[in-house]
Amino acid sequence: MLKIVYLGPQNTNTHLAALRRFKSKAKFNHAPTVEDVFRAVELEEADYGVVPIENSLEGAVTRTLDRFVQFKQTPARIVGEMELPIRHCLITLPRTSRDKVRIIYSHPQALAQCQHWLDKNFSNAARRETRSTAEAVDDLLAKEGLWSRDEKAAIGSPELARQHKLKAAPIPVDRDNRTRFLVISSMHESGRGKRNKTSLMFALKDKPGALHDALIPFKSCGINLTKIESRPTKQRAWEYVFFVDIEGHESDKSVKRALNALKRCTARLLVLGSYSVQKG
Amino acid sequence: MLKIVYLGPQNTNTHLAALRRFKSKAKFNHAPTVEDVFRAVELEEADYGVVPIENSLEGAVTRTLDRFVQFKQTPARIVGEMELPIRHCLITLPRTSRDKVRIIYSHPQALAQCQHWLDKNFSNAARRETRSTAEAVDDLLAKEGLWSRDEKAAIGSPELARQHKLKAAPIPVDRDNRTRFLVISSMHESGRGKRNKTSLMFALKDKPGALHDALIPFKSCGINLTKIESRPTKQRAWEYVFFVDIEGHESDKSVKRALNALKRCTARLLVLGSYSVQKG
Repeated sequence: MLKIVYLGPQNTNTHLAALRRFKSKAKFNHAPTVEDVFRAVELEEADYGVVPIENSLEGAVTRTLDRFVQFKQTPARIVGEMELPIRHCLITLPRTSRDKVRIIYSHPQALAQCQHWLDKNFSNAARRETRSTAEAVDDLLAKEGLWSRDEKAAIGSPELARQHKLKAAPIPVDRDNRTRFLVISSMHESGRGKRNKTSLMFALKDKPGALHDALIPFKSCGINLTKIESRPTKQRAWEYVFFVDIEGHESDKSVKRALNALKRCTARLLVLGSYSVQKG
Repeated sequence: MLKIVYLGPQNTNTHLAALRRFKSKAKFNHAPTVEDVFRAVELEEADYGVVPIENSLEGAVTRTLDRFVQFKQTPARIVGEMELPIRHCLITLPRTSRDKVRIIYSHPQALAQCQHWLDKNFSNAARRETRSTAEAVDDLLAKEGLWSRDEKAAIGSPELARQHKLKAAPIPVDRDNRTRFLVISSMHESGRGKRNKTSLMFALKDKPGALHDALIPFKSCGINLTKIESRPTKQRAWEYVFFVDIEGHESDKSVKRALNALKRCTARLLVLGSYSVQKG
């Protein structure tokens, strides 16, 4: 039986992504931080790890990118990618009536994503940030504090509400809210699928036009970039590492050619993984 | 007298940057969010606004970038840039002895930046995240709660300690920790200095190699990119807007030529500002 470690707690979006990917054929454990997921994968305590990498509204999950930035010889490779639509619900006790809600708990990203709806429907309720949507429900259920449990609400997934036998009212979405997750492993190779993607990280040479030069190999080999992201090296101020996703598998002839050319015009280059892409 | 609005509260790093830039010749007000600073500048309630844009360890301040993403006709332009070294101190009551500290409050970025030092010197103290370093000191001074005031510490600037007559012990830095701040205005033009910078935002055309093509004008006009950052458009998932900083002033011949060429190969282009650069 496969062992899967995901960024927890239970019934957060990363858990839902892990469940959808590995279904019931696996044993699931959660870890409190992205760092802990990587460590479990590196120590081979888990076959696969699942972490968020990007949200369509909030952008990159910098904690995950930064885990790669050190260019350390980590045995962890990206072996897959998942994409899930994010469905937020207003979670309350079954007996709570909406006009009684005085405080709403959730993860800062969830609060930000529901901001317009909250402004319109709960302009008088306080908002309180929690470390996860699961912690928001814990706060809702806590009996101590200023508010009674039927004056409180949380924002989280319908699955989270079900777990605690709470009421979940879907929050209408005005924008395309999706999150991408990475599957990492140091024990298993990635499968090659119909549609493949390769994730790279590189540091530029210190000369004018260096970024332009680093993009020439992709253009000349006809390879599409789906994503580019820069992160500080944390070594010297205002020096960056670039994360690039390209279409195609590293065993494709054109990708091989582009990577060879890229190696010559960058200061450092690392292929983080080459894997098939699934839509959630 | 000039009116300056900065991301507050008082004696946070943005306040220090604003003071250094405008010294005593101005009246300073703080605003609780980046959005509020922009609004005050747009409504001409303030001559200038000061907001953080990037830290050398933690990367872009996405709230500030996102305020530009909408491509709205905002009258606010970037008219200057400041750079400050970040000096963290351990702030306590004068009588507190280090081995008595049970809990340490600060902004998540400050806690992250001092993580190694805290692990080494305060492995047994809890850490609590606050919305600002100023709020951390408020929590230290609060009399209610589980801990007495001499069991508590905060991380913040020496100025913050001085304001409250507290003890400040410098935390040694192991990495180059600097923050860049933007000065924005809708009432005043930017001065042209010895060294100038121009900030741009553009959306790519939907075709392979579009980013590469957008970088050609800079390369062919001999213009150096100091920074590139991508952010989600928030309109459609996995569509991005690019923020680029280049060396030179928009009135320079070479910059003009590059911008004209760039306009032809991007879907949208906006010059956010052109300004002289000062080191902090």
